[in-house]
Amino acid sequence: MTAQRNNKPEDYSKGFPGATANLLCDCQINHMQTTNDSLIRDAIELTLLPSIGRLSQNHLWKALRSISDLFSMDEHSLAAFGIPGEAFSLIRSRGCQATASEIFDWGRREGCQFLLRGGPGYPPLLEEISDPPLILYARGHLEVLEKPCIAVVGTRRPTIYGLQMAQGIASDLSSRGICVTSGLARGIDAAAHRGCLEGGGSTVAVLGCGIDIVYPKEHQRLTQTILEKGLLLSEFAPGTSPAPQNFPVRNRIISGLALGAIIVEASEYSGSLITARLAMEQNREVFAIPGNLTSPQSFGPNFLIKQGAKLVQSWRDIAEELPSEIRQQILIREDSRPCRNPELEMLSEEENRILALLKTDETMQFDRICRTAKLSVPQLSTLLLHLEMNGWVRQLPGNLFVRIRK
Amino acid sequence: MTAQRNNKPEDYSKGFPGATANLLCDCQINHMQTTNDSLIRDAIELTLLPSIGRLSQNHLWKALRSISDLFSMDEHSLAAFGIPGEAFSLIRSRGCQATASEIFDWGRREGCQFLLRGGPGYPPLLEEISDPPLILYARGHLEVLEKPCIAVVGTRRPTIYGLQMAQGIASDLSSRGICVTSGLARGIDAAAHRGCLEGGGSTVAVLGCGIDIVYPKEHQRLTQTILEKGLLLSEFAPGTSPAPQNFPVRNRIISGLALGAIIVEASEYSGSLITARLAMEQNREVFAIPGNLTSPQSFGPNFLIKQGAKLVQSWRDIAEELPSEIRQQILIREDSRPCRNPELEMLSEEENRILALLKTDETMQFDRICRTAKLSVPQLSTLLLHLEMNGWVRQLPGNLFVRIRK
Repeated sequence: MTAQRNNKPEDYSKGFPGATANLLCDCQINHMQTTNDSLIRDAIELTLLPSIGRLSQNHLWKALRSISDLFSMDEHSLAAFGIPGEAFSLIRSRGCQATASEIFDWGRREGCQFLLRGGPGYPPLLEEISDPPLILYARGHLEVLEKPCIAVVGTRRPTIYGLQMAQGIASDLSSRGICVTSGLARGIDAAAHRGCLEGGGSTVAVLGCGIDIVYPKEHQRLTQTILEKGLLLSEFAPGTSPAPQNFPVRNRIISGLALGAIIVEASEYSGSLITARLAMEQNREVFAIPGNLTSPQSFGPNFLIKQGAKLVQSWRDIAEELPSEIRQQILIREDSRPCRNPELEMLSEEENRILALLKTDETMQFDRICRTAKLSVPQLSTLLLHLEMNGWVRQLPGNLFVRIRK
Repeated sequence: MTAQRNNKPEDYSKGFPGATANLLCDCQINHMQTTNDSLIRDAIELTLLPSIGRLSQNHLWKALRSISDLFSMDEHSLAAFGIPGEAFSLIRSRGCQATASEIFDWGRREGCQFLLRGGPGYPPLLEEISDPPLILYARGHLEVLEKPCIAVVGTRRPTIYGLQMAQGIASDLSSRGICVTSGLARGIDAAAHRGCLEGGGSTVAVLGCGIDIVYPKEHQRLTQTILEKGLLLSEFAPGTSPAPQNFPVRNRIISGLALGAIIVEASEYSGSLITARLAMEQNREVFAIPGNLTSPQSFGPNFLIKQGAKLVQSWRDIAEELPSEIRQQILIREDSRPCRNPELEMLSEEENRILALLKTDETMQFDRICRTAKLSVPQLSTLLLHLEMNGWVRQLPGNLFVRIRK
């Protein structure tokens, strides 16, 4: 799939409104200096060649010592790479070199970063997917990519429920040090970005158009805030218009950057279900927010849960599936929050009595708890179930119970 | 847990309003004649002994050749069975024999059946649970127990959504030959019974009180309809009032009769979650209807799904988990329904084109479908996903697709 380029290169500097250069951190510029400028120009040139698709780019990247070598290859070698004959002259004549240079210069001028596959700043998780983009255009704060990321995606036509859930879960994650990636689309995507910013954290928006284009137009202000506090990424050359076919391709990056993807709402035909499938193929955790069967927008998440996606009731369900060191960090942060005690205070007198009996390192038999707490069997069953659902106790085989350190 | 007996035996015949004897099938009476009447009387007597709980009853049933032997045991043997000393005289003097006889005679007079564990008519699935009731009082059509059963349970304080779902799924199941068991409680239980009757099928209500008592009072008409078209069951002696502690105990029978249990709505403290846990312990399939996270009544089902219960979007999700011979019967019945073709007509022109290309016994590669159907990659991805979600195609490893015989 090749990017549609509608704007002329000389339009790039006008492409994005507002002063963005001053938003860049010095550290990012230093980062970039270490990558060879001519290699970046060559990589841009390669992605501009109309007859070399993502598959061939990937193939060349793996096979060549440096992708710059492409331009010195003879016709026989080019053919061996499956490159069609009509592209030979364009490669040999360096027909796209001038445009690539203009893009590069525009980027330097406008504070756009170039993340080259295998180079500094390129997200390591993204390298793991089957077809990582050769180059990523980036604007904003590159350091947010160092945080663990979770993708939050969904339909462009959500319900109020979906919007609330997307914003809520993104806010909960971001306030716990998780970065939320999404696609800056209308609906769930925008709610996820907003929730993330609201939670005081950072967010990454992966675009289906050039990094100089604001799409949809009404997200101008949101885009500006993301630039200031997060990161915009695109694999499409500046000036690429938001063509429908770009979005499914872009989705692999949203999930590719993340440890897992949460699908909030998605009707039967929603592209978010494709993101979920991509995430599964990329060995990412897939999460979904359940919803009423009567809501068409909840069809997708409910279907995914049936297929094995993890049902999400709160941020804790996501934290549980993260690598242990990240989970640990989140829980340490959680322990230091001031709002811990009210949770304990919300338990009933009987529940507190049961908790006081149980230990975290020793099991206790149901009957013994029953006798000691002076509760009836049905009473104790109900209370233990409630405690278990709220993460206070765990039942082990043999009707044994332990307290969980919260 | 012993049943509370408030009504005197002589009240039994008045206990249940309406003429019920004429509703009985002859076949059921014949059934009963084969069981030894004195054995039934002895079993009733055993369950009336205040100091012998369900555990001891179970223990005695397993250990003795006939439970009638209890009444000829010496004190030493009774003590060996863990029966407390204060019960000895009541057992030896046959203190409950007269009451047991009155119950038996009342049953014969009022058309109440006695299902004795190990005897004719006793549900085989119920025998499999860890503590089957020694005796079941039954009114209505015993033959409904020969159908495959699914339990549909939930909160007594449902939302409109929950009521709709309970009624809908029960109706869908009953019209496909599945019998629905529930507890005749307010809310989800009643909606499940009603849905089942609406679907033209039969339903079993398991009571938490004596079989002669209508509880709650407003279910008088529903109880009467179940008597006419289904079955009422109780392990509690006639006259037992609906004490709160009876209900969790009764729940094990609701799920014990069934191949699986569907939890429709249940808040954090709902007894339905205990039914779900019992069903899991009984190795029954546990199903749950998802719902919005903002609805407290959907907390339970969502929680259960997270714990491994199967999310239900339609009756098909339940049919899929049933033993193959039952599933087959349902699908054969489904094939003969007149409303099959509209489903195919609802597919788009492109989807029908894809289906025409695919075979049920041969896989086809994504790229080949793409070329042959003349569709773009994102278009085909979306269409295949939709077809898969609607059960028309299946994806196999290696991006291969097959059509499913529907």
